[in-house]
Amino acid sequence: MSEPTSLKNQLRAASGEQACDLLLQNATIVDVYTCSTFQGNIAITDGIIVGIGAYTSGKKVVDVKGKWICPSLIDGHVHIESGMVRPEELARVLIPRGVTTIIADPHEIANVGGADAVRYMIEASKDMPLDIKMMVPSSVPAASFEENGATLSSKDADALFKEGNVYGLGEVMDYPAVCSGDDEMLRKISLAKTAGHPIDGHGSGLGEKALNAYRVVGIENDHEAITAEEALERVRKGFYVLMREGTATRDMEAIIPSVTPFNCRRFAFATDDKHLDDLIEEGSIDFNVRKAIELGLNPLQAIQLGSLNAAECFRLQDRGAIAPGKKATFLVVNDLNTFEVDSVYVEGEKVAEKGTLLSSLRSHVEVPLQLLNSVRVKPFTKENLQLPLKNSDKATIIEASLTSIVTKKAVEKVEIENNCFKPNKNQLKLVVMERHHQKGTIGVGICKGIPIKKGAIVSTVAHDSHNIIACGVDDDSLYHAINHVVEIGGGMAVVDGDRVIATLPLAIGGLMSTQSTSQVKTALNKLQEALKVIGYHEEIDPFLTLAFLALPVIPSIKLTSKGLFDVEAFSFIEQ
Amino acid sequence: MSEPTSLKNQLRAASGEQACDLLLQNATIVDVYTCSTFQGNIAITDGIIVGIGAYTSGKKVVDVKGKWICPSLIDGHVHIESGMVRPEELARVLIPRGVTTIIADPHEIANVGGADAVRYMIEASKDMPLDIKMMVPSSVPAASFEENGATLSSKDADALFKEGNVYGLGEVMDYPAVCSGDDEMLRKISLAKTAGHPIDGHGSGLGEKALNAYRVVGIENDHEAITAEEALERVRKGFYVLMREGTATRDMEAIIPSVTPFNCRRFAFATDDKHLDDLIEEGSIDFNVRKAIELGLNPLQAIQLGSLNAAECFRLQDRGAIAPGKKATFLVVNDLNTFEVDSVYVEGEKVAEKGTLLSSLRSHVEVPLQLLNSVRVKPFTKENLQLPLKNSDKATIIEASLTSIVTKKAVEKVEIENNCFKPNKNQLKLVVMERHHQKGTIGVGICKGIPIKKGAIVSTVAHDSHNIIACGVDDDSLYHAINHVVEIGGGMAVVDGDRVIATLPLAIGGLMSTQSTSQVKTALNKLQEALKVIGYHEEIDPFLTLAFLALPVIPSIKLTSKGLFDVEAFSFIEQ
Repeated sequence: MSEPTSLKNQLRAASGEQACDLLLQNATIVDVYTCSTFQGNIAITDGIIVGIGAYTSGKKVVDVKGKWICPSLIDGHVHIESGMVRPEELARVLIPRGVTTIIADPHEIANVGGADAVRYMIEASKDMPLDIKMMVPSSVPAASFEENGATLSSKDADALFKEGNVYGLGEVMDYPAVCSGDDEMLRKISLAKTAGHPIDGHGSGLGEKALNAYRVVGIENDHEAITAEEALERVRKGFYVLMREGTATRDMEAIIPSVTPFNCRRFAFATDDKHLDDLIEEGSIDFNVRKAIELGLNPLQAIQLGSLNAAECFRLQDRGAIAPGKKATFLVVNDLNTFEVDSVYVEGEKVAEKGTLLSSLRSHVEVPLQLLNSVRVKPFTKENLQLPLKNSDKATIIEASLTSIVTKKAVEKVEIENNCFKPNKNQLKLVVMERHHQKGTIGVGICKGIPIKKGAIVSTVAHDSHNIIACGVDDDSLYHAINHVVEIGGGMAVVDGDRVIATLPLAIGGLMSTQSTSQVKTALNKLQEALKVIGYHEEIDPFLTLAFLALPVIPSIKLTSKGLFDVEAFSFIEQ
Repeated sequence: MSEPTSLKNQLRAASGEQACDLLLQNATIVDVYTCSTFQGNIAITDGIIVGIGAYTSGKKVVDVKGKWICPSLIDGHVHIESGMVRPEELARVLIPRGVTTIIADPHEIANVGGADAVRYMIEASKDMPLDIKMMVPSSVPAASFEENGATLSSKDADALFKEGNVYGLGEVMDYPAVCSGDDEMLRKISLAKTAGHPIDGHGSGLGEKALNAYRVVGIENDHEAITAEEALERVRKGFYVLMREGTATRDMEAIIPSVTPFNCRRFAFATDDKHLDDLIEEGSIDFNVRKAIELGLNPLQAIQLGSLNAAECFRLQDRGAIAPGKKATFLVVNDLNTFEVDSVYVEGEKVAEKGTLLSSLRSHVEVPLQLLNSVRVKPFTKENLQLPLKNSDKATIIEASLTSIVTKKAVEKVEIENNCFKPNKNQLKLVVMERHHQKGTIGVGICKGIPIKKGAIVSTVAHDSHNIIACGVDDDSLYHAINHVVEIGGGMAVVDGDRVIATLPLAIGGLMSTQSTSQVKTALNKLQEALKVIGYHEEIDPFLTLAFLALPVIPSIKLTSKGLFDVEAFSFIEQ
């Protein structure tokens, strides 16, 4: 509750005894409680909606005749790092689109910098019109054998909860730990539960019994349903289903058919991982709303999923609807069917109009040196990038797909030179190099399915440990590419021989840029142009495919810094 | 969360690694998340549903083929005192009917005994299969000038919240205090808010602006909507609407037409004030469910209102659905349309079958002496019961209605004897006598509309101050009636002259009986028979009408111990 003086002020405005701060006249209100609209004047004082009805006097009066007033949108699950800009910059993109609350899981940067990286993200997320609820990542590292930058233990989680700036426990991915009742996992879950905070799930492909176990420990939502059947099964078990529409994972078309007026309260939206260019070009949760409408959902229901349902899922009682007592954070929308956001108000102040942020955002938070200096490799030579194949000219190959993060295992004949694998444009060399603690561990493998004709691509975004990952047609290009991202302290690059064709420095943990949104967007465009130079002509960003080739918890065969890993057998493969 | 060992036990059962405690085979599960049914086996361990699906082994196995498994029911707002038996006895009535959680507002007994009376109710409500969530009454006394037994200040509320056994703030009735931002009221509200507890409303007849003010301070639900329009207005403003079906107030028929699949999540059920005989004969929230079905609601939706929606309204995350992680508290139902409850399980144990409680309940809690000795009047004579009418033979009369707690004001010619009003069977004498602190204050008035032909009826149940209220045809009967309830320490009686025809002692605060449910039921029946002796032949219980004639916050004219009160003018009337 607001402090008493302020509350009394609001009550005087509610009772019509004194003029409110801002009066929105002739509003058509989107009522997400009933999925209907109604006409009214909206009285706002102290950034709170104090009344809807026959209010006539406001210190400031805005006529919104012919427009719809909608609750602002909530992203139920997002990794800010996937946007590749800092929280302060992401706000610039999300607010004009009408997304004013995000449930953020700093899982990626925690894999680089641990609890202190989470603390940096919390600081960088404060005091903005974008309300960022930061979760404590629950599964860092993703697998115990992984060479990531830091571990986030239950002790770290405890400290973060005690500091009071986190909102819940981020996506619980380690289902074997849940099902077996692993003490460390149960401790983390218990911390969130004791504090009354939400616990996010990650139930990718889980069967009936594992899902039951998830609910038994108190996991409340899941953004990993990818079919209507999976979605309904999760709703039946008491999960909220966050329908995801990110850059790579686009689940809404499959799931929307399962949404009915009777069960829709248990559905909300998420982006999970969405790149900056997609956020800028198609949008964030506003895109989910539009897509839901296109897929046949009643626009009022689509808005309900994006607002009230997410608010209920995350127990955000002060938002999610246009109603008295809620924050005056809302959207003025020109047309419900196209969901075209005209302007955005946050706590009674207009903060964006026609896609542009009106107010200047807070200054950037200083980035800890540890995160600015996160790419630390043991010196290496081209020799270290060799894959000896002594016994046979057949090798196990990762068959990558541009449209899925799931790979296939293939065994094929390969070219051999000096007893080592010799890459070509059909069989690329894939390298994963430990880059956190100068361990010198380097995994070398073979992959196909990324159609480049020469050179190499390299990135320090490689889920979840974010070691350096590179693939290329020749060793020279690979060597220079890796050296280049080491030199710039992390990022992405397209390289041909010793020539760096384009680069995007990601100086913060090798994941996010210190540059502005527009600078990063320009660099991303240049990167895409550079890809054409090395013969890549697909629409899908190959860096996305690359980013998941090192993640040993997604089937079926991956390369880590320790070597080739068979996810299904959960063991390393000898070539 | 259960403590770790227990949780691990549950996880082993969830994963099918060990047999669960109880396996319900071949269940047809009522899924309130989707308003549909599905087949499955339900695994229960430690009183928790650990899984639904293909479980095959349980230490105990029950086949429920052909039956529906429903979540148990929640009463969103009830005054236990209106049942006239103690919490321990009420449990005996409610549990076999499938009501296993009630949100109880001990507002009545708090008006008699203050915070200590609330503490008694808390103690008497513990450790039973009926989970009684006790609210802190917010409006004791109902009006500042009232002569009730005790005041419940924000300090008392603070102490009760600190003791940790209360669940929220009970119905906020004093809307002028809310709208004007009265400090004491805001403090009480703030206590509940700070603790994260629900705050119940009581928005009887409130207009748009007062409802807005209610939402601004954080009041979350209302059980006082009596039309479909009022219900929808409240839902739009963000209230949960608790549809009430009590003894006197029956709102469901009017409200049900406003419920749609799109808005139904904001509706739940309440009984508010329901007498023991009605609870026994027609039921509690199970009756609301049946009535909703009769009124055309889909049975699955009706069950949803009675379970999940109430659980969400009151943030009871551990119940409200048949799903893993929820308490194994559920109903076995023979037929969904008639909602015939076959048996009731609480935390995995069968506690009732075919309307009968199986287990013995806890022993009664000792009643504090203060509450057993709550009827304390200053000695009085018949002279004190006179109403002098010196100036005119016309007097202001309370026109009572048997079907409404709202009265009308009439001015009529009356019989005069010795300059005082002389009652007859058309114009009864109405007496309200202070009975808490021997103040000797006696209000005497005139009422019509309660068709008795001789004698008097008397009661210590007189909302909300619960002074002695009596109405009768002659002074002798009134005098003896009042004396009788003083002698028995509170209760209800039907008296003719000096003969007590029937009596129901309510020794606990003058509101609840120390006797068993069946004894009280027998006494109630005798009271109804006795009414016939004094010429009463209506179906509606006149004690109910009587109980509201002293409540000065319900329009339009009432009698308090201090005299005749005009509710609309909010001032006393001189005869």
